Amino acid sequence: MNKAAKSNDSNAKTGRKRATSYDVAELAGVSQSAVSRVFQDGASASTAMRDRVMAAAAKLGYRPNAIARGLITQRSDMVAVVISKLTNLYYPEVLVQLTQRFSERGVRVLLFALERESDTGNVIEQMLQYRVDGILTAAIFTPAQLSTIINAHIPVVFYNRTLKDQLVSSVRCDQQEGERWLVDELVNAGHKSFGIVEGPADSVVSIERKVGALDELAEMGIDDVTTVSGDYGYETGRQCFAELVEKHGSPPDAVIAANDVMAIGCIDEAREAFGLQVPDDISIVGFDGVGPARYAAYDVTTVRQPVERMTESAAAMLLERIENPDLSPEKRSFSGIPIRGGSARLLPEDA
Amino acid sequence: MNKAAKSNDSNAKTGRKRATSYDVAELAGVSQSAVSRVFQDGASASTAMRDRVMAAAAKLGYRPNAIARGLITQRSDMVAVVISKLTNLYYPEVLVQLTQRFSERGVRVLLFALERESDTGNVIEQMLQYRVDGILTAAIFTPAQLSTIINAHIPVVFYNRTLKDQLVSSVRCDQQEGERWLVDELVNAGHKSFGIVEGPADSVVSIERKVGALDELAEMGIDDVTTVSGDYGYETGRQCFAELVEKHGSPPDAVIAANDVMAIGCIDEAREAFGLQVPDDISIVGFDGVGPARYAAYDVTTVRQPVERMTESAAAMLLERIENPDLSPEKRSFSGIPIRGGSARLLPEDA
Repeated sequence: MNKAAKSNDSNAKTGRKRATSYDVAELAGVSQSAVSRVFQDGASASTAMRDRVMAAAAKLGYRPNAIARGLITQRSDMVAVVISKLTNLYYPEVLVQLTQRFSERGVRVLLFALERESDTGNVIEQMLQYRVDGILTAAIFTPAQLSTIINAHIPVVFYNRTLKDQLVSSVRCDQQEGERWLVDELVNAGHKSFGIVEGPADSVVSIERKVGALDELAEMGIDDVTTVSGDYGYETGRQCFAELVEKHGSPPDAVIAANDVMAIGCIDEAREAFGLQVPDDISIVGFDGVGPARYAAYDVTTVRQPVERMTESAAAMLLERIENPDLSPEKRSFSGIPIRGGSARLLPEDA
Repeated sequence: MNKAAKSNDSNAKTGRKRATSYDVAELAGVSQSAVSRVFQDGASASTAMRDRVMAAAAKLGYRPNAIARGLITQRSDMVAVVISKLTNLYYPEVLVQLTQRFSERGVRVLLFALERESDTGNVIEQMLQYRVDGILTAAIFTPAQLSTIINAHIPVVFYNRTLKDQLVSSVRCDQQEGERWLVDELVNAGHKSFGIVEGPADSVVSIERKVGALDELAEMGIDDVTTVSGDYGYETGRQCFAELVEKHGSPPDAVIAANDVMAIGCIDEAREAFGLQVPDDISIVGFDGVGPARYAAYDVTTVRQPVERMTESAAAMLLERIENPDLSPEKRSFSGIPIRGGSARLLPEDA
């Protein structure tokens, strides 16, 4: 054990009590409210005052108690972030970026990580008990859960999902617009039969993507459409491709997978199990713009979510509503970024 | 807005105050301490008592204040989890599994997400202000930071890193053992010249892997070793391979990358830029056992970290030390799981 640890251990042994802001004020020869100001983010205090207080605080080992402060100010300076296992798996940057955005503003993240998006069971109760100042959720809530939050006057922002008939704030990527782009490009390039690989049944994002693709295919007059379901993972991508071929009787002209990882699974199965050339024999597209979609062996045609802008907006919207609870709800929708990879036969961009 | 929201809004407008445990006790006709017991995890209360209290609480919209309770019990029931951007990017399951393990035990996670592992600057101060009961960190602390934590009597468990000369608890994968296995297999199969692709300079894990590989190569009498540095990403994997070939004058017999994603970058660069066959012309191995390492186009020979057992152990060790602060520090080291993929020419397993 090093020197600092030893000296403090002896303090602990002599039963010395934890220093209070009063002790610091006395030693620094300033008022207790001056000590509070120095330790409060954004409060004014002269440099001289700050130096004096900090020196006294260091000498006494004083540390403000954020929990006690929260009881007085009615602000915990904590927000709840709710994320499902799958969202963090495919978009690990979302959680890190959100946490960093909040941290820059002096706000801590109390994390709720769900096994499945539908596992929101007792999460709301926990958040409320911890008196979080706001909630940012990448999982959907039931109407009853949302009522509980609204009744508790806690601002909430939905990330990549929204409740259409409810007055809630949300930030999302326009999944349906992205799917329409993919369908238009494929149909315009002459693809006539389609396979759709959807994601987990309780994934709101997967449902939006499927509906977007199916609606646009119908509008474009395509009726040769076969649908199968996976779980967003690579292995089900492979299984889904085999299932599609069996259901359709032959490989379709194009496969639209609900995410890039299943698209990669489809590409490997098409090549290895069916000896197909991608994109010469079949076009396979995904959604998300994750790292592996850019690996040379796959080069997936996809739609990338503008994650950085989405997380920035979501954090800013929530913090605004914590500051000003009367702000009316707002829904922001970002277009995805089309990526024309080598996994699909498309017309040249200016065609 | 739905019905529940409306009814509560009108409560808010009439200025009705938040119900206290005293109000609940009065309505239920029980003592205030009975109400506390019902709402306390693990405290005893009869079913009849519980039903009566819960009915009164529901009627009044009462909710215990975890923050206020923490001030009284000196337990916040929160632990700090510190993770770097890169750890979450390549091991997104770590954070989700840790959070779920703590949640099952009624403990919340206060998340600190660092841009780089070395960005621990003001993190310690924040944790202490929030009176976390324990700290689980996948970033390294300086000796001064560690002293501060020890002085505050807060148990800490290091995840995948440890401080050799300090009495701290840690759970880790034996990176060096894994690298020794990879080196032995490659040398035994006849590889004589090696390229090493290391990770970011401030990654403790990358340093351990590099040292493990270099030590074992030296012990096996291999002196044709060229080293280059990447950032764990796919693009630097590609660049590093080109750099290796330039430094070495020709492609080495084998490349050992500090993680799977850089190994995948090396494979693509070897194939596309140098026209090499993997593994016929060159063997390329990684470390981690991430999803893309199993994609058919790469099938990376690697060492998988037993993440589930590691996160379970780490959470259990921290919770034990919160319950019993006098438990002596403990270091647990898990062997990685060797995966013989198609990206390396190895002797048959029983050779």
